[in-house]
Amino acid sequence: MSDAVSPLAVPFPALPAIAGVTPHVVCARYKEWGRADLTYVELAEGTAVAGVFTRNVCCSSEVELGRAAIAQGRARGLVVNAGNSNAFTGYRGREAVEQIIAQVAAHLGCPGEQVFVSSTGVIGVPLPKDKARAGVAAALTSEPCGWEAAARAISTTDTFPKGAAASAMIGGVKVQFAAIIKGSGMIAPDMATMLGYIFTDAAIEPGFLQELLSAASDATFNCITVDSDTSTSDTVLAFATGAAGNTPLAGFASPGADAFAAALHDVCRQLAHLVVKDGEGAQKFIAVTVGGAVSDASARRIGLAIANSPLVKTAIAGEDANWGRVVMAVGKAGEPADRDKLSIGFGGIWAARDGQPLADYDEAPVAAHLKGREVAIEVDLGLGEGRATVWTCDLTHGYIAINADYRS
Amino acid sequence: MSDAVSPLAVPFPALPAIAGVTPHVVCARYKEWGRADLTYVELAEGTAVAGVFTRNVCCSSEVELGRAAIAQGRARGLVVNAGNSNAFTGYRGREAVEQIIAQVAAHLGCPGEQVFVSSTGVIGVPLPKDKARAGVAAALTSEPCGWEAAARAISTTDTFPKGAAASAMIGGVKVQFAAIIKGSGMIAPDMATMLGYIFTDAAIEPGFLQELLSAASDATFNCITVDSDTSTSDTVLAFATGAAGNTPLAGFASPGADAFAAALHDVCRQLAHLVVKDGEGAQKFIAVTVGGAVSDASARRIGLAIANSPLVKTAIAGEDANWGRVVMAVGKAGEPADRDKLSIGFGGIWAARDGQPLADYDEAPVAAHLKGREVAIEVDLGLGEGRATVWTCDLTHGYIAINADYRS
Repeated sequence: MSDAVSPLAVPFPALPAIAGVTPHVVCARYKEWGRADLTYVELAEGTAVAGVFTRNVCCSSEVELGRAAIAQGRARGLVVNAGNSNAFTGYRGREAVEQIIAQVAAHLGCPGEQVFVSSTGVIGVPLPKDKARAGVAAALTSEPCGWEAAARAISTTDTFPKGAAASAMIGGVKVQFAAIIKGSGMIAPDMATMLGYIFTDAAIEPGFLQELLSAASDATFNCITVDSDTSTSDTVLAFATGAAGNTPLAGFASPGADAFAAALHDVCRQLAHLVVKDGEGAQKFIAVTVGGAVSDASARRIGLAIANSPLVKTAIAGEDANWGRVVMAVGKAGEPADRDKLSIGFGGIWAARDGQPLADYDEAPVAAHLKGREVAIEVDLGLGEGRATVWTCDLTHGYIAINADYRS
Repeated sequence: MSDAVSPLAVPFPALPAIAGVTPHVVCARYKEWGRADLTYVELAEGTAVAGVFTRNVCCSSEVELGRAAIAQGRARGLVVNAGNSNAFTGYRGREAVEQIIAQVAAHLGCPGEQVFVSSTGVIGVPLPKDKARAGVAAALTSEPCGWEAAARAISTTDTFPKGAAASAMIGGVKVQFAAIIKGSGMIAPDMATMLGYIFTDAAIEPGFLQELLSAASDATFNCITVDSDTSTSDTVLAFATGAAGNTPLAGFASPGADAFAAALHDVCRQLAHLVVKDGEGAQKFIAVTVGGAVSDASARRIGLAIANSPLVKTAIAGEDANWGRVVMAVGKAGEPADRDKLSIGFGGIWAARDGQPLADYDEAPVAAHLKGREVAIEVDLGLGEGRATVWTCDLTHGYIAINADYRS
């Protein structure tokens, strides 16, 4: 955890205990520090699991093994290492992950493929096997901890711990969600050095859980960007213990499936926004809404072109309603757009319509909007019904300060 | 022109006069300043012209009209306005361009399509027609000026004037090149708010000049990036007066065509490097060379993913040999790559080979290399013969300072 807290930070919420989920944290000393940096979560037998992973082709062994293991649909244990991403470390890195999996599986008496491992931190240094072995051994026999401690233990450059809760009614049974996430830089569509874990006591078939998680990720985690960089380790896992005792959800025909899907989507959206709010150097939270595109996918690509534009992000940092830079970003997105049908607004006020500055444009209310912590950029392409919202933060001196002096 | 000069600035070179090319500059007062901001270049009858333009779909009227006029292959006049890009200004912006074209064409007694106009500066403010009319009238009757004055007059946020020269022998006749360029931010493949003008006294068919300019641009202007943003106004024009008297070049079969092509490529490369060296906030010039890719195009896309990565650019700013971030950028490029065959180096020294840090990696010489003004990043994918070099600069506090407070 970093010292200077993001001005967009929100207090850690009260998260419910989830029956069948037991978190632990210990200090494995992956770096020279005294903080907890190894998180272990024990999951009740029969817990369903689903996951989404980075599309970075230079992914870590953790991601490779996790992606392969998701198919069998069940999980008993989760280990998260902070301070070392173990990415790009060849066979030595892979051996460290296999060692952790074997150690936890032996303790739980489960197949290795039911143990999931994530690591986050510097790339290129093999995870030290001795520290991992001692840390896991300590974690397996430690006292359980609360969600905030776990959220802190999975963090690296984060400036505040991040959690989200939700609940849903399934056929008269209340199911609960508790979720934690870490992530601050190297955030782009396809996620980031973003590690997110969602726990619920709902009963649900793994395949349906995967379907819902993938859909929710697409509209949340894959719609945020801090710096357009995609990490080698991004992972979001959802675990459902079934302890709530509802009739298991098998598909959208199951009663309560819509409520569960809505709650899962809500948790994912909360988590995604928290990551943006801790974007490296962020001073403002920016929502970019693109309407009138030829399709939703086209709207999202245009939204991401705007959200990834350094010139747009620095303009917002400077509280400058520079809609010309938004025009530029729309034009470079490689998607259908017609300059003479394009409208640009901020905070609900149009600055330009149909390809021209508004004659009676009053910049005062826009300037007031831009002084706030939450900024809305609206684009109407005037071509069709496609629509999407993406979220990002501004680009400030803080980003440079953090990233020009991170590893040294 | 900005006050603080880039530490990568180079002195303006001695450029030859080009027979048939007469530059002029005047102050049209497009902004409240006393500097020259309107450049007019008169070209001898029969001058061949070729051009490449931004692919930003929200382009300016200048670009639209220029692109359409290139096809007829001849040019008599060029007008460049600095301080106002006239982009996204609807019919009023277009009328201003048409007025300039008509005024120059009437003076020269040539068709309007032989007059080319560029504008650079803030987007969204129509070019004031009265200032343009008075400025052009003054320019048409003004004394000719030198190349450095013209290079200064086309500048906006540039911190130094930029020019390049070359020559070639065509069948015993020496032909000369003089070229100027402006550009500093909003620089990405597909060029930038980059306006470049190349003048030669060679005789060459317009179609062949276009073929050579497009090829040279692809390997130079389209291989540089400052901030991944693509301007609405990018333009590079090449003018060939034919005054040198060589046998006109019609294709690669013409004697001397290879020498001419090499000289043109050299001029384009010089100009492209100058723009990167004036990248907003640039402290270091970075060459990214990618080899072992499945194709040259794939190598270029991977090179651009590295060169556009804020995390790589801030690492170089911090003089940090953070090859892990280079791995990340390779992986996110969406191109074929195999983590376990990947090698990364700096300044000719490998830091990682075949997917792992080198056991005997000595960081001292790499650290020394990174302290210099010119940094080389080398990537070997180990897959094929594809190869490309792209150029960029580091990402510093200077970029934020310039762009968070540009328009206000």
